[in-house]
Amino acid sequence: MNTQRDPDSPRLFDNLNEVVSRLRESRESTHKVRHRGHIRELPSRNAMHEIVEMVSAVLFPTHYGRPDLHDANIDFYVGDTLSGALSSLAEQVRRALLFSADERDPRDGGLVDKAHDLTARFADALPDIRAVLVSDLYAAYQGDPAATSISEVLLCYPGCVAIIHHRIANALYRLGVPLLPRLIADIAHSSTGIDIHPAATIGNSFFIDHGTGVVIGETAIIGRGVRLYQAVTLGAKRFPVEADGALTKGVPRHPIVEDDVVIYAGATVLGRITIGKGSTIGGNVWLTHDVPPGSNVSQAQMTSTTGM
Amino acid sequence: MNTQRDPDSPRLFDNLNEVVSRLRESRESTHKVRHRGHIRELPSRNAMHEIVEMVSAVLFPTHYGRPDLHDANIDFYVGDTLSGALSSLAEQVRRALLFSADERDPRDGGLVDKAHDLTARFADALPDIRAVLVSDLYAAYQGDPAATSISEVLLCYPGCVAIIHHRIANALYRLGVPLLPRLIADIAHSSTGIDIHPAATIGNSFFIDHGTGVVIGETAIIGRGVRLYQAVTLGAKRFPVEADGALTKGVPRHPIVEDDVVIYAGATVLGRITIGKGSTIGGNVWLTHDVPPGSNVSQAQMTSTTGM
Amino acid sequence: MNTQRDPDSPRLFDNLNEVVSRLRESRESTHKVRHRGHIRELPSRNAMHEIVEMVSAVLFPTHYGRPDLHDANIDFYVGDTLSGALSSLAEQVRRALLFSADERDPRDGGLVDKAHDLTARFADALPDIRAVLVSDLYAAYQGDPAATSISEVLLCYPGCVAIIHHRIANALYRLGVPLLPRLIADIAHSSTGIDIHPAATIGNSFFIDHGTGVVIGETAIIGRGVRLYQAVTLGAKRFPVEADGALTKGVPRHPIVEDDVVIYAGATVLGRITIGKGSTIGGNVWLTHDVPPGSNVSQAQMTSTTGM
Amino acid sequence: MNTQRDPDSPRLFDNLNEVVSRLRESRESTHKVRHRGHIRELPSRNAMHEIVEMVSAVLFPTHYGRPDLHDANIDFYVGDTLSGALSSLAEQVRRALLFSADERDPRDGGLVDKAHDLTARFADALPDIRAVLVSDLYAAYQGDPAATSISEVLLCYPGCVAIIHHRIANALYRLGVPLLPRLIADIAHSSTGIDIHPAATIGNSFFIDHGTGVVIGETAIIGRGVRLYQAVTLGAKRFPVEADGALTKGVPRHPIVEDDVVIYAGATVLGRITIGKGSTIGGNVWLTHDVPPGSNVSQAQMTSTTGM
Amino acid sequence: MNTQRDPDSPRLFDNLNEVVSRLRESRESTHKVRHRGHIRELPSRNAMHEIVEMVSAVLFPTHYGRPDLHDANIDFYVGDTLSGALSSLAEQVRRALLFSADERDPRDGGLVDKAHDLTARFADALPDIRAVLVSDLYAAYQGDPAATSISEVLLCYPGCVAIIHHRIANALYRLGVPLLPRLIADIAHSSTGIDIHPAATIGNSFFIDHGTGVVIGETAIIGRGVRLYQAVTLGAKRFPVEADGALTKGVPRHPIVEDDVVIYAGATVLGRITIGKGSTIGGNVWLTHDVPPGSNVSQAQMTSTTGM
Amino acid sequence: MNTQRDPDSPRLFDNLNEVVSRLRESRESTHKVRHRGHIRELPSRNAMHEIVEMVSAVLFPTHYGRPDLHDANIDFYVGDTLSGALSSLAEQVRRALLFSADERDPRDGGLVDKAHDLTARFADALPDIRAVLVSDLYAAYQGDPAATSISEVLLCYPGCVAIIHHRIANALYRLGVPLLPRLIADIAHSSTGIDIHPAATIGNSFFIDHGTGVVIGETAIIGRGVRLYQAVTLGAKRFPVEADGALTKGVPRHPIVEDDVVIYAGATVLGRITIGKGSTIGGNVWLTHDVPPGSNVSQAQMTSTTGM
Repeated sequence: MNTQRDPDSPRLFDNLNEVVSRLRESRESTHKVRHRGHIRELPSRNAMHEIVEMVSAVLFPTHYGRPDLHDANIDFYVGDTLSGALSSLAEQVRRALLFSADERDPRDGGLVDKAHDLTARFADALPDIRAVLVSDLYAAYQGDPAATSISEVLLCYPGCVAIIHHRIANALYRLGVPLLPRLIADIAHSSTGIDIHPAATIGNSFFIDHGTGVVIGETAIIGRGVRLYQAVTLGAKRFPVEADGALTKGVPRHPIVEDDVVIYAGATVLGRITIGKGSTIGGNVWLTHDVPPGSNVSQAQMTSTTGM
Repeated sequence: MNTQRDPDSPRLFDNLNEVVSRLRESRESTHKVRHRGHIRELPSRNAMHEIVEMVSAVLFPTHYGRPDLHDANIDFYVGDTLSGALSSLAEQVRRALLFSADERDPRDGGLVDKAHDLTARFADALPDIRAVLVSDLYAAYQGDPAATSISEVLLCYPGCVAIIHHRIANALYRLGVPLLPRLIADIAHSSTGIDIHPAATIGNSFFIDHGTGVVIGETAIIGRGVRLYQAVTLGAKRFPVEADGALTKGVPRHPIVEDDVVIYAGATVLGRITIGKGSTIGGNVWLTHDVPPGSNVSQAQMTSTTGM
Repeated sequence: MNTQRDPDSPRLFDNLNEVVSRLRESRESTHKVRHRGHIRELPSRNAMHEIVEMVSAVLFPTHYGRPDLHDANIDFYVGDTLSGALSSLAEQVRRALLFSADERDPRDGGLVDKAHDLTARFADALPDIRAVLVSDLYAAYQGDPAATSISEVLLCYPGCVAIIHHRIANALYRLGVPLLPRLIADIAHSSTGIDIHPAATIGNSFFIDHGTGVVIGETAIIGRGVRLYQAVTLGAKRFPVEADGALTKGVPRHPIVEDDVVIYAGATVLGRITIGKGSTIGGNVWLTHDVPPGSNVSQAQMTSTTGM
Repeated sequence: MNTQRDPDSPRLFDNLNEVVSRLRESRESTHKVRHRGHIRELPSRNAMHEIVEMVSAVLFPTHYGRPDLHDANIDFYVGDTLSGALSSLAEQVRRALLFSADERDPRDGGLVDKAHDLTARFADALPDIRAVLVSDLYAAYQGDPAATSISEVLLCYPGCVAIIHHRIANALYRLGVPLLPRLIADIAHSSTGIDIHPAATIGNSFFIDHGTGVVIGETAIIGRGVRLYQAVTLGAKRFPVEADGALTKGVPRHPIVEDDVVIYAGATVLGRITIGKGSTIGGNVWLTHDVPPGSNVSQAQMTSTTGM
Repeated sequence: MNTQRDPDSPRLFDNLNEVVSRLRESRESTHKVRHRGHIRELPSRNAMHEIVEMVSAVLFPTHYGRPDLHDANIDFYVGDTLSGALSSLAEQVRRALLFSADERDPRDGGLVDKAHDLTARFADALPDIRAVLVSDLYAAYQGDPAATSISEVLLCYPGCVAIIHHRIANALYRLGVPLLPRLIADIAHSSTGIDIHPAATIGNSFFIDHGTGVVIGETAIIGRGVRLYQAVTLGAKRFPVEADGALTKGVPRHPIVEDDVVIYAGATVLGRITIGKGSTIGGNVWLTHDVPPGSNVSQAQMTSTTGM
Repeated sequence: MNTQRDPDSPRLFDNLNEVVSRLRESRESTHKVRHRGHIRELPSRNAMHEIVEMVSAVLFPTHYGRPDLHDANIDFYVGDTLSGALSSLAEQVRRALLFSADERDPRDGGLVDKAHDLTARFADALPDIRAVLVSDLYAAYQGDPAATSISEVLLCYPGCVAIIHHRIANALYRLGVPLLPRLIADIAHSSTGIDIHPAATIGNSFFIDHGTGVVIGETAIIGRGVRLYQAVTLGAKRFPVEADGALTKGVPRHPIVEDDVVIYAGATVLGRITIGKGSTIGGNVWLTHDVPPGSNVSQAQMTSTTGM
């Protein structure tokens, strides 16, 4: 009963000290490794979000950049925005390297050098990334009868957001940068509902329409000119288990999709199977075996209707 | 090899100039049309986001507006917020008109007049939009056993966010405003996972429960009192192709759903078919043909279970 | 025709007064109850968003908190952040209590006392919530072959975001706080595509992979060590209807999932059925009946392939 | 010597706990009264800053308000901005009343009622405040040969900022609101270098040019049409001392300046003296005695010049 | 008496409507001219503040710009920041031109062209402005024994802020841009206490130490190498009056200060007099007549001291 | 002539490239030293501003901190805010050390260690700083008949802001931290008009009333219980010149003011003179010689009045 307590005593904070102590105990019992010695700053999701927005603006300045761009000032904008993105990315790469290192001193100058080197290589890759993304945009424009212009694709298509994030994340992944590619993939997943593992290999002219619920696994390999619709899964059929019962990590376990394949909404493709070039996989199809090039796979339809 | 380079030289920016040049080349080779002459400001996604939030607050001020509203100040709030929303929308409409025009001078006063006119017509439509949205809210409250009040629907239901965005986007679409309706639809898609093309025609008392993965296509027509669950697709079965291989744009290709139909989670309805009044379409059903009024369509269930 | 009007007269605001009046009429006709008397501030979604972020930082400060945390300052950070979260939460709880009360004076001191009491109880629950969440994190790390560390799970997994939000929302739900649990659930739904009703009961070591499209209903009961994949529905089969045609609210109508069950992507489990301990439900399975412990339920696969 | 300490141990936070403890001791020894019982929120300088900006926008909406104001929307803007300002001010008034009360419970409903009452009275006074401020603006325009328009005065004159703040602060002072008038005066002092005690009585058509260093004391009385320049002091000559050695508070001790007086830069006027109507006080004059109406007081000039 | 009123009725907003009406009447009676026809957006003080900060960063990028600047990225930064500043300034110049025009249509394209032209000319002047400012910085470094580096002058000296603002404001003034120069001057005045009319002519190597209270009038002319201390006034002695009693505007009425003059704190120099080259004016001197080159003017000191 | 140019071509950016080049030339010719090699981040004024605000909140949490502080949470707030302030200050100290070093590598770990050490020493000094500041607050409360409480002094007195900044800046100065003390002093100067060199030595119970225009020089020494009014200068009489014509830096050249001295508004005290204990210096007095303890120095008053 509360009736006896002093009305002036704000019960709100009465247990604050105790809760803080119990949380410390909880951390200490479960999380023993980190923070004994020096401070280890983790990569920041917000920072990565801003970096990807800056890189997107560098790649497509008239659509994602400032509204007043013109031939006379666009290179200044691109150079300055890129410069800011690289400074910030280099710091996040440093943190990611430190995060994945076992016993590194955070003030180790070598980490800074390595982070700068990886970041500069990433910058080098941007013009090629842009070229591939342009092929993706054209694929979207040509693949959706509702699309009225490339600009509409850039501004309004979640599939466009997803592929830009993926190509950036994948470039960092291939450079060996830890953690950041996953952060970028999850940022895209959160805003689009499209979940592409950064390690997935995807050819150019790739288009995902609508997209919510699409999942593309870590070891998937996708050719050129592939088109997916919402809720398509390119997943693993089963997970190999180690002798000790733990899941084996890193084994190829996701599909290979060859060039010019179309996979309609809701199709589930599982395991290290190959969908041959030019095949069409129908909506809701459940596929766990190879199909030869040029196949049409559709779900057998069985519904029962009862009338009035 | 890095060993010879001056440790003071931050490699981070060494290739900055070159990357900027290569990006310029990439833009010039792929993107020839825009920005030769004057500056064309594109519509802004952030601006549209804020406009929709302001319009939502105008429509439901006690739920989406300031917390201190009262009979004595609510009209001032509504009038001022609407006024700000219209100023900002008029500018976005101007940009959208300019964007879709072929060779328009951005300082053309006629565009401003047209944008003001379209924006004022949009304002005119708001009370009617509100009336339809109120029917949608009641449909949600009555359609979900977990809903405890209309306010809870307004504050917590993604289907509510989706339908408010859609009715705003559709009103702009019907006025002939380019691009902005798609932007609004994609903003709603990103936050709810519900993807409704702004051109879709939807009757009142409409409710989508849970909603993630719902797709409603450009030419879909939905009657009154319809209820959808998550992952329902009202899509196109196939895309007509032009003689030149390009997809034909704008052809009616999505379903007609008559009054009082319920479609359960995961159902896929494809093509210009009609679902008759009062029908129920079961979960996961794959439907590509007309069904008469009052039908119950359910998936034939086939699962194989193996026990211990 | 516009040709006669004064070009100086901005038509933009010509109908502002009239639209404001018609919106007021619309509010008055549909929304009679609220705001006759005093001001009732509704709970704020943005405030709840910040509160959940602060509570997440309190639970996992080195991952969601400030980057400079260290043994020497971490308790100050946790205590101060928790203190700010509790102050803000107490105000939201007060609003929620007022919102659900019928005829309460907003300045009623008793509401403040009750809000403080409920908020302090919530604080008490945090160490236990943390312990359960740690079990969830280990389940994620062990359940996904692509996961490389617990930190990666905390930073990059939408399933992690969803379960943190759920455990916070559920704690408030069990304390009897109205509305706020739903707000928290919808905030998580919007960012992850995972829709868990705050009333759902979920045991520890729970993991959702990918997650987009998952729906877990109000009366679902989930045991320990359960793993779900994207687009799994634990839903109601049908809704009991009252004599007056309204849906009955609050009846147990969602599945019971026993310990150590795995449910693969796209499976739909409907009604108050029980999935026995240790069972595996395959992808896309449609399940509406009990299955005994140790079962393997898989979809009968029927696809028709036509080749070149 | 640093060489022995562990390089991983960040000395930065080593003494954090001890410093926090010593600060607590310092607070406890010097500041015994407050915060034993409940929380007393102090008025917020930032909140008062925003309130004065909102009230300024209410008074002169086309200069200090939104840029898109027009006959059709200006009253909505004024009403909504005023409404927001009053809500916020009422809360600050409540805090100020609580602050000055001896043993008040912060949740005492009577304080809220009194704060609402005072705030509504302040609102009532605004049209009259505006009328006086308009006279001040005309005085500035006519009094400065460099002024080109009333708008320039509103946008660019620190004397205008100072008098708007003063008339707002003085209205609250006359209503008996504690502390807030001083906060407003100091906000103006900080941005203009003009220090007017909120209790000072100032007639209409008042103008301060340049203004830096002007000081007008608590009990000063200034007539109509008075003009001051920078660094003018209307101060106290001496401070009466109580029997116990403390300064006596509240005694009239600052000058009376009658109508149409001009006081040039750097003049110092001290004590409860009267400067008669229409007098001119020259730059740098030091004045501690009454002067009759129509006087010209100038400094005797004495400089010694030594040439090359 | 309040005892009878409904406690639920928040008196706070009871008079809102009436106050809004009375404010409208007040505006209509005093402020007849503006806003009858179209909307006239006034220049924005906040926008000018940001523009001056951007221009300062363009002039001294390593001190006022981003912290990561380096040979490889500095020109991108300068070009992009300048480009943003010019876009924003062009809009403010357009508003200022419209503001000073009598009956101009705000959509008049000619105003845009004129604003662009004036803004581009301002850009042209920036390298020369920078050269003069560098001379000012060296003068500060050499003139203050407490200064330890040029960087300290740039970061910590209010005189440096004041002269940068003045040289920018004066360049716009000489181009004939209305209002904006005054806004810039008042922004500097507010942050430094130094009040320089934008029309004042100031030679290079100019330094103001401490600075609070300095006033330099509209028609003042200052040579090279002049040094001022706090509270120096270069003002008008009297204001010529027109036949109708109004002050004559624009007449030369402030001092001419020749090269290499030093004026110590608190000196007041009034009227169109000339201080000859190389003269020194002592602290607190009151000077209203010409002094020949090389003079030393000091105040005759008269103080009376009474001891214990 | 403009008539020939393409109206579409925005002249606004035509000279952008050229201006950027000329600015680069200007930088290269005048500013040769910096930025040849690595990036040197300068201390940030904004960062120092935030640090001083955080430290002020640490010292007086109930006045400058969060509004919800209470016995139960105040130490968490103080510890967390202090921790954040120290992290940020350590980085600024590192930059300041680097800035003042001649040829230091910015990645030199030794600088980090030294910065951490100096920052921790600064933290150590905070309780003593607080004790002195409390004496200053009491001096203000007792010295101004208009002050109604210590809280009013903390919230509304510019002299309070100035002395808090000074005592922080002076502590850093005595630790040998370069540049940052000057930045803090100038931040206070900008908001209060009070300019105290961070090297000035000031005893406890110090109070400045009104304050605009006060200047206290680098080598001034002020005893206990001293009170100053606005526009008082404690300055240098003349600047010793080196053989090469440069000013000698660092020589004692400002006054010594002994305990319990009062100096009224506008007094100018110049040179290494001593004002004896308990003396009173009148307003506008010009003082350049020693005065013995207990003196009263007042200006001989000479004004000429001409009446009607």
